[in-house]
Amino acid sequence: MKALYLENTVLELRDVELPKPADNQALVKVKMAGICNTDIELVKGYMGFNGILGHEFVGVVEESSQPELIGKRVCGEINLGCGRCDYCSKGLSRHCPNRSVLGIVNQAGVFAEYMAIPNENLQIVPDSISNEAAVFVEPIAAAFEILEQVHIQPDQRIAVIGDGKLGLLICQVLKLTCAELILVGKHESKLELARSFGINAIPKDKQILEKFDIVVEASGSPSGFSTAMSLVRPRGTFVLKSTFASNLEINAAPIVIDEINIVGSRCGQFKPAIRALEQNQIQTSPLVDSVYPFEKVLEAFERAKSPGTLKVLLQLDD
Amino acid sequence: MKALYLENTVLELRDVELPKPADNQALVKVKMAGICNTDIELVKGYMGFNGILGHEFVGVVEESSQPELIGKRVCGEINLGCGRCDYCSKGLSRHCPNRSVLGIVNQAGVFAEYMAIPNENLQIVPDSISNEAAVFVEPIAAAFEILEQVHIQPDQRIAVIGDGKLGLLICQVLKLTCAELILVGKHESKLELARSFGINAIPKDKQILEKFDIVVEASGSPSGFSTAMSLVRPRGTFVLKSTFASNLEINAAPIVIDEINIVGSRCGQFKPAIRALEQNQIQTSPLVDSVYPFEKVLEAFERAKSPGTLKVLLQLDD
Repeated sequence: MKALYLENTVLELRDVELPKPADNQALVKVKMAGICNTDIELVKGYMGFNGILGHEFVGVVEESSQPELIGKRVCGEINLGCGRCDYCSKGLSRHCPNRSVLGIVNQAGVFAEYMAIPNENLQIVPDSISNEAAVFVEPIAAAFEILEQVHIQPDQRIAVIGDGKLGLLICQVLKLTCAELILVGKHESKLELARSFGINAIPKDKQILEKFDIVVEASGSPSGFSTAMSLVRPRGTFVLKSTFASNLEINAAPIVIDEINIVGSRCGQFKPAIRALEQNQIQTSPLVDSVYPFEKVLEAFERAKSPGTLKVLLQLDD
Repeated sequence: MKALYLENTVLELRDVELPKPADNQALVKVKMAGICNTDIELVKGYMGFNGILGHEFVGVVEESSQPELIGKRVCGEINLGCGRCDYCSKGLSRHCPNRSVLGIVNQAGVFAEYMAIPNENLQIVPDSISNEAAVFVEPIAAAFEILEQVHIQPDQRIAVIGDGKLGLLICQVLKLTCAELILVGKHESKLELARSFGINAIPKDKQILEKFDIVVEASGSPSGFSTAMSLVRPRGTFVLKSTFASNLEINAAPIVIDEINIVGSRCGQFKPAIRALEQNQIQTSPLVDSVYPFEKVLEAFERAKSPGTLKVLLQLDD
C-alpha cells in the first residue's frame, strides 16, 4: 500500500506492506486525513519520530475481532495505552507512561491506505457527520480537554490567544460555556472568520486593558505566551495548549505574586467532540484550506507549512 | 524612633518620625521581627522598594480606634487592600490590584520601633505562642496557602524541593496531610533537621526514580525548578513557591504533553498558622539561626545573606 513515511526529517511516499492488526486491533481503510501542526513539527525533528506520519483520520473498518465494527465508519483516539497501568485503569491511557501514539511515538500513523488500531480506540462516526468534519474530531477533542481540566463558569471572562486552526476550534468550544469570550489574533481574515462564528475577535496590536479569569495560549509563539500571561488576572488560569519546540524564557515572578494557575493541556476524549459535531455546535468547513488527493501529499505538506494556512486535508478514498 | 531604611539598595539605621496611624489603623510597638529572603532580594533591588523594610513581626498595640486591641500582642497580615475592589470584597485583599504591602510595596515596614497597620490586618497572638515563634506566623501562613490552593489528598505523594527556611516550614505543614512526603535538599545539616521533624529527607544528588502527585519548588534556584519539574507525574501539580528575581528558561513541552498544573503560591491567611503553632504542630525554634538586638540590624542582615543561614531574628523590645 502507499504510505507517507518520515525518515530523518525527510518525507517520502513509499510502497509499504499492509499492516497486520493484532488480536485486539482493527484494520481500517483510511478515507480522509488531516495535517496537523504537530505533523509539521515532527518533520522538523520534534520527538525524533520515524515512520508513517499522521494521526487525524476517518476510515472504514475492514477487519476486526469485534464483528460489530466491520463496515463501520470510524475515527480513533491516538494514544495507545498499555491497558495495565494506573493511568490506563483510570481511563487516562493518553497519559500511560508506556503508550505509543499514532504517527507520533512508536506507532505507524494514518497517512496510509490502511492502518491498524486497537478496537477500543475506535469511535463510530454518525452518518450526519461528513468525512471532512470527522477529521476534525481529534483537534476538537483537544479543545474539549480544556473543559475536562478547568471548571469554566458561565459568568467568567476568557481570552484565547492565537487565531490558527486550534485557536478557532477552541473558541467555538469555549463559546458553548456562554462565558464572555474574546479571541486575540494577528490574521485579519481569520479574525473575520471568528466573527462569523459570533466571536469577539481582536487584533493583537490593539491594547487590552482588562484582565481575564481564563487565558488560553494557542498561538505557539513566545510573544503569544507573553501576551497571554499579561492578560491573566490574579488567581486566574492560564491554559497552555501550544507545544513549544524550543525553550521559553519566562519571568516567573508574576506567576507566584499573582498566584496564577498554569494548566498544560493536550489530547481529549472523542465522545464530546462527536456529540458537538452531531449537534452542529462546531463549524469545520470554513476551517478547511484545501483537500489534496493522497498522491499529492508532498504538495499538501508544502501548502500546510506556509504560515497562516488553515486545515489541509488528504483524500485517500471516496 | 529608630528604623531600618532602604534607599537605592543601601540599608541604613535612621532616626525617623513616629508613624501616625490613620483612623482605621493601630500603632504597634514592635517586639520582634524576622528577616525573610524577600528582604534580601529587596535590598538587591527587587520591586524597586525604598522605605522601612520588614514584614515579619510581633508587637503590642499601643493605640487603636478599636479599644479591645490596645495592649494586645499581635502579628499582622502584610497586604493592605483598598477594601472596595472585587478581591477585597471576597477576602482576597492580598490580591487587591491597589494594595500596598508592608515593607515591600508603598508601605513602611516593621524593622522599626513602631509601625502603623490597619486594625483588620491584626491577629491576636495567644499567650502560649512565644515572640520567637509568632514571628514565623507570616511564613507559616505562606506554607498553608498551598493547602488553600491545592486539594492534597492523604493518599498522594508529595516532594518538596529546597531545604531552606520556607521549605522546612512547608514540609511541616504538608506533613499534616499525612500524605507520603519527601524533602529534597542540598544541605546535610538541614536534611538532618528535617529528619528530626520526622520527614524523609533526601540529598539532591541521589537519583529519584518515582514521580510525585504534587511537587513544591521552594529552592529558589533554576536547577531546583528543573529538578522539581522532572519529578511531577503526568496530570500532577507543581507548586511554585520561590520568587525568581531573574528570568527562567524552561522547556514548556512537558507541561503540555504531561498536562502539568503549575500553581503559583504566595501569601496565606494567618489564622490557620496561629492555630498550628498553638497546637504545637510546627517547630520553629530549630529554625532560628540567631537573634540580634535591633542596633545590630546591619550585622544581622550580613548574617542572613550568607548562604544556608536559617532564620535571623531582630529583638526590638523585650
